[in-house]
Amino acid sequence: MSMKLNYLMPTRIAMGENCVYEQRNLLSALGKKAFIVTGKNSARINGAYDDVVKALAENGQDHALYDQVMANPTDVCVYEAGKLAREQHCDFVIGIGGGSPMDAAKAIAVLAINDIPKESLFTLDFKNALPIAEIPTTAGTGSETTQYAVLVDTTEADGKTPKAGGPAKRSISTPLLFPRIALLDAQYMKNLNRDITVHTAIDALTHAVEGMLTFKSNYVSDMLAKDSITMILECTDDLLAFPEDPSAFPMDKREKLLLASAIAGMVIAQSGTAAPHSMGYQFTLNWGTDHGRANGLLMKSFLLMCQEKEKALRSADPSFSLRIPKLRAALGMELEIFFDLIEKLLGKREKASEKEIAAWSALPMKNAAVTYTLPNKEEIDRIFRESVG
Amino acid sequence: MSMKLNYLMPTRIAMGENCVYEQRNLLSALGKKAFIVTGKNSARINGAYDDVVKALAENGQDHALYDQVMANPTDVCVYEAGKLAREQHCDFVIGIGGGSPMDAAKAIAVLAINDIPKESLFTLDFKNALPIAEIPTTAGTGSETTQYAVLVDTTEADGKTPKAGGPAKRSISTPLLFPRIALLDAQYMKNLNRDITVHTAIDALTHAVEGMLTFKSNYVSDMLAKDSITMILECTDDLLAFPEDPSAFPMDKREKLLLASAIAGMVIAQSGTAAPHSMGYQFTLNWGTDHGRANGLLMKSFLLMCQEKEKALRSADPSFSLRIPKLRAALGMELEIFFDLIEKLLGKREKASEKEIAAWSALPMKNAAVTYTLPNKEEIDRIFRESVG
Repeated sequence: MSMKLNYLMPTRIAMGENCVYEQRNLLSALGKKAFIVTGKNSARINGAYDDVVKALAENGQDHALYDQVMANPTDVCVYEAGKLAREQHCDFVIGIGGGSPMDAAKAIAVLAINDIPKESLFTLDFKNALPIAEIPTTAGTGSETTQYAVLVDTTEADGKTPKAGGPAKRSISTPLLFPRIALLDAQYMKNLNRDITVHTAIDALTHAVEGMLTFKSNYVSDMLAKDSITMILECTDDLLAFPEDPSAFPMDKREKLLLASAIAGMVIAQSGTAAPHSMGYQFTLNWGTDHGRANGLLMKSFLLMCQEKEKALRSADPSFSLRIPKLRAALGMELEIFFDLIEKLLGKREKASEKEIAAWSALPMKNAAVTYTLPNKEEIDRIFRESVG
Repeated sequence: MSMKLNYLMPTRIAMGENCVYEQRNLLSALGKKAFIVTGKNSARINGAYDDVVKALAENGQDHALYDQVMANPTDVCVYEAGKLAREQHCDFVIGIGGGSPMDAAKAIAVLAINDIPKESLFTLDFKNALPIAEIPTTAGTGSETTQYAVLVDTTEADGKTPKAGGPAKRSISTPLLFPRIALLDAQYMKNLNRDITVHTAIDALTHAVEGMLTFKSNYVSDMLAKDSITMILECTDDLLAFPEDPSAFPMDKREKLLLASAIAGMVIAQSGTAAPHSMGYQFTLNWGTDHGRANGLLMKSFLLMCQEKEKALRSADPSFSLRIPKLRAALGMELEIFFDLIEKLLGKREKASEKEIAAWSALPMKNAAVTYTLPNKEEIDRIFRESVG
């Protein structure tokens, strides 16, 4: 069978202390007026916003600010911000923050120059978007190196009436959303607390792991996944011994996690994510669980299902390629040891009610269809039960 | 010390049997009329040219052909072809072949839409170039994933008078030269003979190895270098036992070499190459030695010099970071074993005269300045002597 792959990750990555200011010439090339997208506080507290403003001023570039992105940004939020970006005549977008502001920035880059009816937001094949720069201030989402923007779809086609059936996490995916530039400075993470640090690290880890388990996984994405996994596992001792004072967490490990997260982004830019990503959205939507933690909760049961099912698939078709041995090689450890590690990082697990599990298991799970073992409804149900039952 | 890096490799890579035709939609996006750049014969013999013409026809795209690229293409050649591309109103360029046609295609993409005086060809900061697609038919150069075009500078400023001091290999380097698309189909290499297969594999290997030994090497380029090296070393048994009939060389190894070469291109797109690349040009210019072989001839002595010198540099400065242990880890073997392997692949070494070595060692060696051990004239001279003396 011939080796097949499709690879694209056109984002320029610049990493280093003070790189936003030092590499400000990269921002010069993007436009005349930046639309800066942040959450409510952290971009100011960690210094990233000030660095961006200073760099833009030095470049002679103007800017406008939208600092109202909530955790798990909604359709309503990005339409509002997109309108503002247009009114302000901004010609490029800078996202600063974790996945929420960075994903919002991508959607805003589209909405600033396109009139997109609400009902088409997640399905339309856009033709253009403003150039995007992303400045991650957590190390998990990898949004800075992907073509995805995940939003919470809260409204019906009118963009106002609350969605029948409740909010759903949905994604926009187009090569236009690859940032032109990702600026990585781990200093912005210096004071990130234990939970955000650990949960975002788990997020990056699940990107790399799930990225090895989809139909779009290929030689290059697997190679990058292994590299990302290795880097994250080199940080787990420090994550487990997270200090009382977050700023005492070793900066070289913050850097390693930040780069590993960007590389895990490069993985899922090729492979996409597997079933747990769709499943974990339920925890986030219903309980407000951190996205990375949500994925982490599902990992053990998901991988055990894959291990069991791939054996059956191999028995039925001798050409079926086993993935779990490859994953084990990438992890450099037996699955049971890996599961113990995840368990320690997660601590006490959340519990779902019987009713919740039944409701979730009945939902369509988009990423199940790209998962190499094609988990069915019963398997999804079992993973939910084993993970949070 | 903070982790620093700059990463950019915006080329879309599509790999697979028959990918030129199957992924022809990627070519559709590049323009209306292609300027196809090939050498004299191989693109026709290996089927790549026919596949491109078929794909373009299916897309309703027109094309013109320039099939006069020689091994180690000259300034004169790319000016001639650039003029033709302009006269033919081509709006994108497709290079098919080894490094020579692919590098020529890049220069032509610039010259087709820019009036560049000959004396500025290697120094000008170009503002635009036609979109480029590259189809490698050897697995060595990695040109399909780099921003470099290496040409032989043969003429003075008038573009006609032969260059005083003789021809020199020089390179154009700008992000504009990153191909939009690289189409990788190992079928085109099915009948590549032993020497081309081995020498191009050595070329890719030296890209990955040298890429770990420059001032621009970084965490990501090292990671990719290790992956590329691993893949190439998985093919060396087959290279050493190259069959009488080239088409009997295992196709899965051809594929692995092709991908490893593209990944080694991704490495040097970040890191550049080290001293041997500048030095080896002398063998090619004077003896016609294959480029990869030329690098391979220098590798042992170069690495031994680095090993010795980095110890001295470390003694003088305890913060000086040793690279040879990292390289050894990437190779997964001791240097002596690696040298034996290279020696077997090279076979009988060429010999230079005392006069040649003296003349070459006096030349400026551009890549010595980016080599992490900063080899001086004496060291360059010693490497030449040990390699071909």
